[in-house]
Amino acid sequence: MNDVINTIMGHRSVRQFKEAPLSGDQVETIVKSAQMASTSSYLQAYTIIGIKNRSVKAKLAELAGNQTYVEKSGHFFVFCADLHRHQLAGQMENVHVTESLQTTEKFMVAVIDASLAAQNAALAAESIGLGICYIGAIRNHIEEVSTLLKLPDYVIPLFGLAVGIPAEETGQKPRLPLENVYHEETYETDETKLTAQLSEYNETISSYYEKRTNGRRNDRWTEQMARMLAVPKRIGIKTFLKSKLYMKKN
Amino acid sequence: MNDVINTIMGHRSVRQFKEAPLSGDQVETIVKSAQMASTSSYLQAYTIIGIKNRSVKAKLAELAGNQTYVEKSGHFFVFCADLHRHQLAGQMENVHVTESLQTTEKFMVAVIDASLAAQNAALAAESIGLGICYIGAIRNHIEEVSTLLKLPDYVIPLFGLAVGIPAEETGQKPRLPLENVYHEETYETDETKLTAQLSEYNETISSYYEKRTNGRRNDRWTEQMARMLAVPKRIGIKTFLKSKLYMKKN
Repeated sequence: MNDVINTIMGHRSVRQFKEAPLSGDQVETIVKSAQMASTSSYLQAYTIIGIKNRSVKAKLAELAGNQTYVEKSGHFFVFCADLHRHQLAGQMENVHVTESLQTTEKFMVAVIDASLAAQNAALAAESIGLGICYIGAIRNHIEEVSTLLKLPDYVIPLFGLAVGIPAEETGQKPRLPLENVYHEETYETDETKLTAQLSEYNETISSYYEKRTNGRRNDRWTEQMARMLAVPKRIGIKTFLKSKLYMKKN
Repeated sequence: MNDVINTIMGHRSVRQFKEAPLSGDQVETIVKSAQMASTSSYLQAYTIIGIKNRSVKAKLAELAGNQTYVEKSGHFFVFCADLHRHQLAGQMENVHVTESLQTTEKFMVAVIDASLAAQNAALAAESIGLGICYIGAIRNHIEEVSTLLKLPDYVIPLFGLAVGIPAEETGQKPRLPLENVYHEETYETDETKLTAQLSEYNETISSYYEKRTNGRRNDRWTEQMARMLAVPKRIGIKTFLKSKLYMKKN
C-alpha cells in the first residue's frame, strides 16, 4: 500500500461541506491534475466549468433535484464533453471535420476523456484533504444546465463534481464482489454463477444497511437496483445530444 | 504536492513493456482500486476482463491496429460498460427494467462509471511502478472484440488498458493551456479568444515536436487534429451499440 492506493481506497462521497471557497491554488492543482489524464489521440475532448458564484450554484442545485450540497460546496466543477475546439481547429486549418465530429465514436471519446480527467481531479482533491461528490443529476435538466452555462454546439454537460472541506464523516458502501466485476479471459457467461454472486452481495448490503440504520432498513442491492430501474429516468437525452450535434452519425 | 498529485502529474503512456506477467496481488490491487471509484446511483455499471493468455492478447493487438504493446503487456484489461447484471437484478426481483436500461442516459452512466473506475486502475498501477497505456483502438473492430471476449447483451467493450513493467522512458506531451480547458461561471464564448489560445498552443506543440525529433517534425496541434478528423473513423458504432441493446431509447 502507498499513498495513492490509500487515497483511492479511502474514497467516500461527501455531501456536507463547510461553507468555504477553494483557494485559487487548489482549483489550479485540481484542473492541472485533470489535464494529465490520458486522452484519446491527444484530443483532450473536454472542458471544465468552475462555478464559484453562489446564486449559480443554487440554481444548479435546484436543477439537480435540490441537492443542497451543490450550493454549499466550496467549488462546483461541471465536466463537459467538448468537440467545439476541434471544430475551431478544422476552421483554422480549413479542413472539413464535421462528419467525423458527429460520429457516435467521437461522442464516446469525449465522454471517456472527460471522465478520466474528472477522476484525476477527484483524487487530487481528496489527496489535499477535500471531499468530493459526483453529481450526475445535472442531467435531470441537461438542456437548462447547458443554457445556464452558455454551452455552444459540440459541448454537453456530463456531470458535476462538488468539492469542499468535508463537514461530515461518511461510511464506505461495500462494492460488488471482485469476481462479479472482474472476469479473466472471457466474460463469465454462467448466469447461475453471476446470480449466486449477486445473492451473496445482497446479504452483504442488507446487513450493511441494517447496521447503519439500526435495523430500519435492510434492502438488497438487486432490490434497490430493480426499484430504481423500474421507471426510466432522464428521457430525451438522445434528442438533446443530437441538438448539440453529437451522435448524429453512426 | 503529495504522492497522489506527483503520480498524477508524472503520468506518461508506456508502449514498451518487459515481458513479465503481473502478479495476482498486483491485479487484485488494480481491480479493487477501480472498484472504489464513485459510481452513479450505486449501479457499478462496468465489468473488467483481464487477459493473460498470450494468443488472446495477440489477437486483440491485431484487432487494435497491430499495437504490439497490447500483446507484450504484462496484463491487458478490457473495460466494458455493463448493464447485464442489472438485467439479472430485474429478473431476480421480478421487475421489468428493460425500458430503463435501454435509455441513452443509462449508456452514459455505464460509460462514465467504467471510465472513472479505469482511471483509478491506471493510477493504482502507476503508483506501484507499472506503466500503462489506454487502448481505444479496440473499438476499431468492436464487434470482433466483443465476440472474442464472449460479451453478452448489455455489455460492450469501451477501451483496453495495457499494464506492465515499463521498458522505455517516455516524455510528457504538453496539455492545452489551462484557460482553454477551464472556464469560470460560463463557457468562454469569445471564439477569437479561444482561437488565440489554440494558436499559442500550436507554438508550444510545434517546438515540442521539433526538439523531440531534431527538427524532423513540427506539426501544430490544430493541424494534427484537422488531419485526423478529416476522415471519419470507426463508423458503425451506433449500430453495434443498439445490437447490444444500448441506446435503443431516448
